[in-house]
Amino acid sequence: MLIIEKVLLLKNSEIFKNSRETDLVEIASICEECSFDKDVLIFSKGDKGNCMYFIYSGKVLIHDEGHEIVTLGENEIFGELSLLDTESRSASVTTLADCVLLKIEQEAFYDVIATNTDILKGIMRTLCKRLREQDRVTIEMKKVMS
Amino acid sequence: MLIIEKVLLLKNSEIFKNSRETDLVEIASICEECSFDKDVLIFSKGDKGNCMYFIYSGKVLIHDEGHEIVTLGENEIFGELSLLDTESRSASVTTLADCVLLKIEQEAFYDVIATNTDILKGIMRTLCKRLREQDRVTIEMKKVMS
Repeated sequence: MLIIEKVLLLKNSEIFKNSRETDLVEIASICEECSFDKDVLIFSKGDKGNCMYFIYSGKVLIHDEGHEIVTLGENEIFGELSLLDTESRSASVTTLADCVLLKIEQEAFYDVIATNTDILKGIMRTLCKRLREQDRVTIEMKKVMS
Repeated sequence: MLIIEKVLLLKNSEIFKNSRETDLVEIASICEECSFDKDVLIFSKGDKGNCMYFIYSGKVLIHDEGHEIVTLGENEIFGELSLLDTESRSASVTTLADCVLLKIEQEAFYDVIATNTDILKGIMRTLCKRLREQDRVTIEMKKVMS
């Protein structure tokens, strides 16, 4: 995959959509392309996580103890929390089709963002947005349950 | 309140607990002390938010359309998402007692973090932690509901 293709994939993701193309070239240069067959367990809940994945093609299932949490497809990302903090994986991920993924390792990522506040701010805004969405879901579920 | 007292309050909060004291002195210098009587609406859901609050003393209720979401007390914070992104308030806040709060305005905050990746990383880790907690709550609720 060319660097420019990687940049476009990153730009389409929620986490990097606010980042500038020049910053994304740096991130793209540390992305590693990797392929998985169908029905492969990529990581398990509780694993030490030190990378995140972008889905270039294919489909994966996020699951937890037999419960299906969500299905993700092209341009979507997973494992991003373990890239950003140092906690273990909070759910398991299995491929539902042959997949081509881009992998970003934590150490290389931290080298890039150490001097790049714009990327960090973009990520922070994305995390805030997801927290707001989660808060909304929790409040709605509480209303239904009460 | 002395700068050192403000630093200690910040250090006790989840959002800044991983930040260094030297960094917190910078943040403390932009904190404004403000008092509210009991039963005062500090902000309403939908308001444009451009600041966050630390509770030095007192108690507040976070609520949404008649639903009580959570009660917060000393050393806790609220309004932090609107400090970090540019969205409107996702819930309303009313004092349950006389309160002394520390207020941080967005513009001053961004000036400080523009050159300080460590503070940004600490905040990012905190947001990740909250997202993980929220994910856990959502999964548990889904299990209960199914």
